[in-house]
Amino acid sequence: MTYSAVILGASGYTGAELVRLIATHPSLRITGLSADRKAGMAMGTVFPHLRHLDLPELRKIGDLSFEGVDIVFCALPHATSQAVIKELPAGLKIVDLSADFRLRDAAEYERWYGKPHGAPELQKEAVYGLTEFYRDKIAGARLVAGTGCNAATGQYALVPLIRDGVVGLDDIVIDLKTGVSGAGRSLKEGLLHAELSEGAHAYSAGGAHRHLGEFDQEFSRLAGRDVRVQFTPHLIPANRGILGTIYVSGEAEAVHGALEAAYAGERFIEVLPFGELPSTRHVRGSNFCHLGVVGDRVPGRATVVAALDNLTKGSSGQALQNANLMLGIEEEAGLMLAPVFP
Amino acid sequence: MTYSAVILGASGYTGAELVRLIATHPSLRITGLSADRKAGMAMGTVFPHLRHLDLPELRKIGDLSFEGVDIVFCALPHATSQAVIKELPAGLKIVDLSADFRLRDAAEYERWYGKPHGAPELQKEAVYGLTEFYRDKIAGARLVAGTGCNAATGQYALVPLIRDGVVGLDDIVIDLKTGVSGAGRSLKEGLLHAELSEGAHAYSAGGAHRHLGEFDQEFSRLAGRDVRVQFTPHLIPANRGILGTIYVSGEAEAVHGALEAAYAGERFIEVLPFGELPSTRHVRGSNFCHLGVVGDRVPGRATVVAALDNLTKGSSGQALQNANLMLGIEEEAGLMLAPVFP
Amino acid sequence: MTYSAVILGASGYTGAELVRLIATHPSLRITGLSADRKAGMAMGTVFPHLRHLDLPELRKIGDLSFEGVDIVFCALPHATSQAVIKELPAGLKIVDLSADFRLRDAAEYERWYGKPHGAPELQKEAVYGLTEFYRDKIAGARLVAGTGCNAATGQYALVPLIRDGVVGLDDIVIDLKTGVSGAGRSLKEGLLHAELSEGAHAYSAGGAHRHLGEFDQEFSRLAGRDVRVQFTPHLIPANRGILGTIYVSGEAEAVHGALEAAYAGERFIEVLPFGELPSTRHVRGSNFCHLGVVGDRVPGRATVVAALDNLTKGSSGQALQNANLMLGIEEEAGLMLAPVFP
Amino acid sequence: MTYSAVILGASGYTGAELVRLIATHPSLRITGLSADRKAGMAMGTVFPHLRHLDLPELRKIGDLSFEGVDIVFCALPHATSQAVIKELPAGLKIVDLSADFRLRDAAEYERWYGKPHGAPELQKEAVYGLTEFYRDKIAGARLVAGTGCNAATGQYALVPLIRDGVVGLDDIVIDLKTGVSGAGRSLKEGLLHAELSEGAHAYSAGGAHRHLGEFDQEFSRLAGRDVRVQFTPHLIPANRGILGTIYVSGEAEAVHGALEAAYAGERFIEVLPFGELPSTRHVRGSNFCHLGVVGDRVPGRATVVAALDNLTKGSSGQALQNANLMLGIEEEAGLMLAPVFP
Repeated sequence: MTYSAVILGASGYTGAELVRLIATHPSLRITGLSADRKAGMAMGTVFPHLRHLDLPELRKIGDLSFEGVDIVFCALPHATSQAVIKELPAGLKIVDLSADFRLRDAAEYERWYGKPHGAPELQKEAVYGLTEFYRDKIAGARLVAGTGCNAATGQYALVPLIRDGVVGLDDIVIDLKTGVSGAGRSLKEGLLHAELSEGAHAYSAGGAHRHLGEFDQEFSRLAGRDVRVQFTPHLIPANRGILGTIYVSGEAEAVHGALEAAYAGERFIEVLPFGELPSTRHVRGSNFCHLGVVGDRVPGRATVVAALDNLTKGSSGQALQNANLMLGIEEEAGLMLAPVFP
Repeated sequence: MTYSAVILGASGYTGAELVRLIATHPSLRITGLSADRKAGMAMGTVFPHLRHLDLPELRKIGDLSFEGVDIVFCALPHATSQAVIKELPAGLKIVDLSADFRLRDAAEYERWYGKPHGAPELQKEAVYGLTEFYRDKIAGARLVAGTGCNAATGQYALVPLIRDGVVGLDDIVIDLKTGVSGAGRSLKEGLLHAELSEGAHAYSAGGAHRHLGEFDQEFSRLAGRDVRVQFTPHLIPANRGILGTIYVSGEAEAVHGALEAAYAGERFIEVLPFGELPSTRHVRGSNFCHLGVVGDRVPGRATVVAALDNLTKGSSGQALQNANLMLGIEEEAGLMLAPVFP
Repeated sequence: MTYSAVILGASGYTGAELVRLIATHPSLRITGLSADRKAGMAMGTVFPHLRHLDLPELRKIGDLSFEGVDIVFCALPHATSQAVIKELPAGLKIVDLSADFRLRDAAEYERWYGKPHGAPELQKEAVYGLTEFYRDKIAGARLVAGTGCNAATGQYALVPLIRDGVVGLDDIVIDLKTGVSGAGRSLKEGLLHAELSEGAHAYSAGGAHRHLGEFDQEFSRLAGRDVRVQFTPHLIPANRGILGTIYVSGEAEAVHGALEAAYAGERFIEVLPFGELPSTRHVRGSNFCHLGVVGDRVPGRATVVAALDNLTKGSSGQALQNANLMLGIEEEAGLMLAPVFP
Repeated sequence: MTYSAVILGASGYTGAELVRLIATHPSLRITGLSADRKAGMAMGTVFPHLRHLDLPELRKIGDLSFEGVDIVFCALPHATSQAVIKELPAGLKIVDLSADFRLRDAAEYERWYGKPHGAPELQKEAVYGLTEFYRDKIAGARLVAGTGCNAATGQYALVPLIRDGVVGLDDIVIDLKTGVSGAGRSLKEGLLHAELSEGAHAYSAGGAHRHLGEFDQEFSRLAGRDVRVQFTPHLIPANRGILGTIYVSGEAEAVHGALEAAYAGERFIEVLPFGELPSTRHVRGSNFCHLGVVGDRVPGRATVVAALDNLTKGSSGQALQNANLMLGIEEEAGLMLAPVFP
């Protein structure tokens, strides 16, 4: 059976990544693509790497038909997403890749995003899209909220540790090194090649990054009390990939054991042997997440390192994995592409 | 039906790329992997990006069984390849990725590679692996010689033009910009990140590059007379991709028309609209080759630009395409992966 | 003695490069900096790498004083430059880094830049800034027009060859690989790191690049007849550097000899031994230009390769070298900084 | 007055960086260069970016004369350095860039470097080369031990904080992102462009990196008790630069104040305004170190970020700064080169 998929916001990187993945999916077919400012253009013109595909022309959302559509991927900017989804035909299955439905609490949303939520009833309905931990709910959901790519990286390392109580809750430090595609295709001086290559810097440091809202929500829920991690993201000169170095108190072997147990049956999460650490280059272009743990000469301290591709496991790959669940397809359909190295 | 494939020389980049592609091939299964110095190791240790795959352990060639093997990919170094293939069981179908069987003429081989060929009878038997132009012969061959990656790039631009007589034969200039993975995983100072990044340089200039042997052989055969192109390869700071800028005399529209006609039915060769030029970033990780043509203010001159991924269409993807033909499988099986951008 | 310098358009890369160079110049002092949209800001805020310097605040041009100023560097955008320079106090010595005064012929200017020149009398007065070939005129000039960075690269390779008649005039091909800083700090999608890194492409191919106007003007003047070269620039993923690969007919040794003779006494132009070719990484951040020549297996053909840093020898370093001449300072003052490698 | 300098181990990156800096030093002249395996070669052949300089030929150490030499820079590999320095003429002033004399305690040396020290009397004599904190001792020293580049980065952020008691001592985390030139010009698979670019990974994690010996020695001395920090270095795809993100407990304003006070009169250490954070790209190729501090939403926590160029302030620039002190020259002579951006 073939399912019909529509992608809203197809002219950004996550939209293009969805098309790339669906291109070899055995049972999904793209029947609609939207891009407001580029309506009327061919996808292969906007993204020449997709020119070999037979794709519908880019249209304005209002010009798309949702008749017979099985799944909608909404890759629109934050805030736009909630306004658009509210107006879509009721009953449509939707995977949203924006930040709009990640936080369940209206006050938290307003705190991190600076204005009241425009679709609070949908906000309540949305299921958080961290597949491995919300699988059953996602399978039955109508609206799934894709996680932040940084938030996914930190959670794959920490969710089992906090849930199983093998690490302290008050001294967690998450230091992320992220590739530039996470910032999207927006025209900002700091994203120019001449500005970004051959260097590194921290941004949104000191507790200012919005993905902290997700960490707070999920970690506090698991711990049954408030958990407030420290989190510093850094931009490094690579297009794809997030490397998370996470400092915790806890016995390193117990930490490693908790991760191994948590991900024992998972296709996409690879826990490396104790003492080995991952690299973003070994997950590039794929839906895999690699996790490693090492002890420290300081007793009772451990370091967990997580690597994933922000555009795939951190965003569009995750979205497709969730869509597979929602449609009742095999969860890994279209997602077993091996990483591209070198 | 599932076919059994063995890869000799699996610890280099072309070997790993074959594994990456076969990982999602519908009807090939890897049953043997060789790597002389890394025998006994797991492929996932040598190439962590492949650790999620269930693969046989690396062995010495002598420890592999070829019983029931349907196709052998030989990704060994030049010169080693001919010695090894000579000793393989007769009747095995083999795709060789080295330079050993690219040149049909023993004297030409000796001239470019500096010593007599060690398996001249096989040299005669081997079919040149430029799929689109040797398809029928490849389908019936026992031994196929993969082309040089630079040689493939130049030929996709020039074969139809020389064959159809739309360009002059005596003033062809091929200026290539190639990514560093084409040089393999060898430990050379010039391939270090600190030496290579943030710069560009020419190498093997002035008619010294061995892929000229292929250009001479193929272009002269097509023209029915000696053709000697000028060819300068350059190393640029990118991992994958070859961009060929080819200067010819001829009417630009006729040049474009000849390319469009030649590749009209081809799945992997995309001829862009007249005046548009390709980029290596739009074929990265894929088996596609993009071609563009532009005229010049100097009357009677045209520029053709070709882009492909040296590890895929220029090497391992080509090898798999040829193997599909030799096995009677659908030619594009396992090869329709969309390019990875950004 | 200390001379006073003003930089107009200090918020772009060439402006910043001027400040970097003048920072260690023994006898120049920056007394004014303009940047229209960033007026009121500190230079160290706009360019944090310059924060250790004691510099005047950025101002609008109208708010600068030119009283007692010895030299003005005009690093404004094309077209803006001519309008601004026309209004500056008469008698001021000016080095212009824009394209506005490079072409001496009003019709040629209009042809390449699409509109009539706004200061044709200044256009006539301006001296072309290719230092090594216009040294005497520059020393006595009031207005010097900096060359295009691509134009400089091609001319360092070709001027002696055309002047001395050692190469054919009708089949010259200039293939350039240029770093991204040449495109300036402008917000264009194609200049984003995610778009540009890990790939290469040609642009303004087929005779469309404006620096051809300079090639035509200078080469035709030297040859005493029209010379029309072919020229294809390519963008590669490096911040600085232009590598020019230039294909000529001529005897390679004679070509090499002509370059050696032409640059025998020059401090900044290094002609490599015959057969050796340069790399952009070995001139990075410096005012040096490296030139190499290799013969070809095709008799009567030679390849010249030129490497320089587009922001230094191709632009701001050249401007400072010319300013030194105009002020009667030692020509290499402030310019002997060794290249930064790796 | 001109002083005579000899560089031992001139064929590595730190040796070349010394030559680059001394090239524009007003009162140092290079009179000898050693490189064991490259003896007999010209420096400009080994490092073409230095070809414009008039330099002595590379020789074996035994073939150098130390007659009249004022300062020796020893840029030899670890362990080799101690054996060589022991045999140099007594009384020679020496700046060693290796790890051999960084640790004052023989047992600590053996613990971190795996064998007994070969010149323990020199080990005792050597002064630790962190200029800003050992200035007086360096000025009077005969043998100065250059710090590790990572060790310098961490110490510039932490020395004033530990000394002034404004941070807790038991929960310091140092997360470093370092460019690849810090690993030197050695032929290791992991340093190839194809392996390193477009990704990031941690190495020597969990308390295994040798620069911890320096942190332990210096921080414990300042605190008057054992201090054991956590330290994870990461390799990122950049040639130069170290970005250190340092997590501490303490009041952020007090932390910032301590840094501002400590570096108030320093030419090379720039403390950014509170809340601003530095980038490695803004110190590239220079002797500057930029420091920034930000508070955290978690009360009582602060993040300090330090950026320097590992080859300059982290190694050869530091060595030259120390040599200036030892020779009684102006401390910043030859070192005021502005960073190269972009």
